[in-house]
Amino acid sequence: MRIAIDAMGGDHAPKEIVQGAMDAVNEMEDLQITLVGDEAQINPLLTNQKNIEILHTTEMITSEDEPVRAVRKKKNASMVRMAQEVKEGRADACISAGNTGALMSAGLFIVGRIEGIDRPALSPTLPTLDGKGFLLLDVGANVDAKPHHLVQYAVMGSIYAEKVRHIPSPTVGLLNVGTEDGKGNDLTKKVFAKLQEAPLNFIGNVEARDILNGAADVVVTDGFSGNIALKSIEGTALTMFSMLKEAFMGSFKTKLAAGMIKNDLKGLKTKLDYSEYGGAGLFGLCAPVIKAHGSSNARAIVNAIKQARNMAAMHVTDTIKEKLETMNDKGGQ
Amino acid sequence: MRIAIDAMGGDHAPKEIVQGAMDAVNEMEDLQITLVGDEAQINPLLTNQKNIEILHTTEMITSEDEPVRAVRKKKNASMVRMAQEVKEGRADACISAGNTGALMSAGLFIVGRIEGIDRPALSPTLPTLDGKGFLLLDVGANVDAKPHHLVQYAVMGSIYAEKVRHIPSPTVGLLNVGTEDGKGNDLTKKVFAKLQEAPLNFIGNVEARDILNGAADVVVTDGFSGNIALKSIEGTALTMFSMLKEAFMGSFKTKLAAGMIKNDLKGLKTKLDYSEYGGAGLFGLCAPVIKAHGSSNARAIVNAIKQARNMAAMHVTDTIKEKLETMNDKGGQ
Repeated sequence: MRIAIDAMGGDHAPKEIVQGAMDAVNEMEDLQITLVGDEAQINPLLTNQKNIEILHTTEMITSEDEPVRAVRKKKNASMVRMAQEVKEGRADACISAGNTGALMSAGLFIVGRIEGIDRPALSPTLPTLDGKGFLLLDVGANVDAKPHHLVQYAVMGSIYAEKVRHIPSPTVGLLNVGTEDGKGNDLTKKVFAKLQEAPLNFIGNVEARDILNGAADVVVTDGFSGNIALKSIEGTALTMFSMLKEAFMGSFKTKLAAGMIKNDLKGLKTKLDYSEYGGAGLFGLCAPVIKAHGSSNARAIVNAIKQARNMAAMHVTDTIKEKLETMNDKGGQ
Repeated sequence: MRIAIDAMGGDHAPKEIVQGAMDAVNEMEDLQITLVGDEAQINPLLTNQKNIEILHTTEMITSEDEPVRAVRKKKNASMVRMAQEVKEGRADACISAGNTGALMSAGLFIVGRIEGIDRPALSPTLPTLDGKGFLLLDVGANVDAKPHHLVQYAVMGSIYAEKVRHIPSPTVGLLNVGTEDGKGNDLTKKVFAKLQEAPLNFIGNVEARDILNGAADVVVTDGFSGNIALKSIEGTALTMFSMLKEAFMGSFKTKLAAGMIKNDLKGLKTKLDYSEYGGAGLFGLCAPVIKAHGSSNARAIVNAIKQARNMAAMHVTDTIKEKLETMNDKGGQ
């Protein structure tokens, strides 16, 4: 098993990426890693080269680059070379913490789509109160989704939840403005009918208010609404942490109290930290492609590596392909 | 100035509604209130009848009722009679904490739309870190919105922010998946172009992550995405409060710490409590119609009454009508 990693992508690259790679090969015996990026920057950080190779390139895609154009023009960028390692069969999966749009383009144009999948979906796993987590997809790969795209998301999400997250017969919910059947806009009404007929554990509509309570294992939505949900959740959590911090710094008494519960609050932050579940998978491509969070530290990279390895080891891509073929044979799509 | 209030709508009706009405007339000299509902239940609670009349009816719309049908069939429901008071000119504005869908139907079918407004918008004011708050619309009155609907939301929201919230030249942002121009789905791309040409202080796209930081005074979106954003924010805040509570109950030490910062945490809860800004306005109707939160207490009702009074006193409805006429004359829509 070999995983290609963009060593130059993310806010803390290459340091945390290289550290994460070294930690991962230490933990996982069967793992080989190709770090794609600038040798001159990677080498001094690579204190243990066991099972790690460097694929040298100095070109990079930055967060300011226009995604599609960058992937087309910067043929030697670390992210592009990383995707080519997968495309040409030298790696089984790849990971980048860099420009999300560029990774989606690299995934689409270089790694390529699974036959039958019209649009890949970006799929983070978000935390729930009970610590189980849920998969939300799509969060922005495809902002003008058609009904059958969402059915494909449901199929891909279910397979991932079952194979990688070990949830038997995962529940699938459709993100909507109310829980009753028949609720929603034109898109969700059409999707609802299709999901009822699909070979899935579809439990109906779920509301954004309930998804952090674990309303469903897989929550399906179009890329626009999913992006709004994800960023609303992130923004609210960050705002509340800011407010908490402010409240705690108010007086000597509150500072004292804050000191007493510091560890418990850290636990809360960890519970909300979705890098614990790995990065966001780009589902529907010919091999696992993982978008690690831009602010990933070594630990987040290790989690993303585990996730990519499990996706490859559990043959998630092949299973999706087979499931789609069965559904097409039955006219079930 | 007379405001009609559905005394029977909401989780704490009629008790908190009646109390809120009494508090409001005490505070506001020029205010008269018509409480619509069951005399037998209202009278024992009405310890001060100054400037308060009861319009007796025993029929009610419940939260389980199908909205459109309930408004059509239950001709004597408190909510329907309340809307008729406005329609027939006996009240200047109305408020209900009951079934949201039914209130939208009553607003649309009984109070009626402003000429030129195709779809009303449900518009809560949400809290920001700096305490200033922002208006989000639409959060679900119209889940299949067309581009020109969102332009009308922007106009109505700006007028409300300026007249009632006293924000000079309020900034208008379009909720989107990224801040750059050209981002988004088919709908937002079309809306973006129209908003650039409209007589508004349009500042471009805003992300859901930034709206609680006060990215814009008025955030415009379609009813589906707005509903997802609103409920994601609510759900995250509730989840975090649950987690905090759990963390605080973990040990003797944390319980002690929790006791020490109890008041500061209450402050945080108040800061996030958007009933402080009144209810959600149903903009685009011939008179102010306010949806108070289902869990409204007397204080939330007082805030909703203030809001309705200010909307009526500042002639928000007429101003919207005039602005639309000017825009139509100029072909600006």
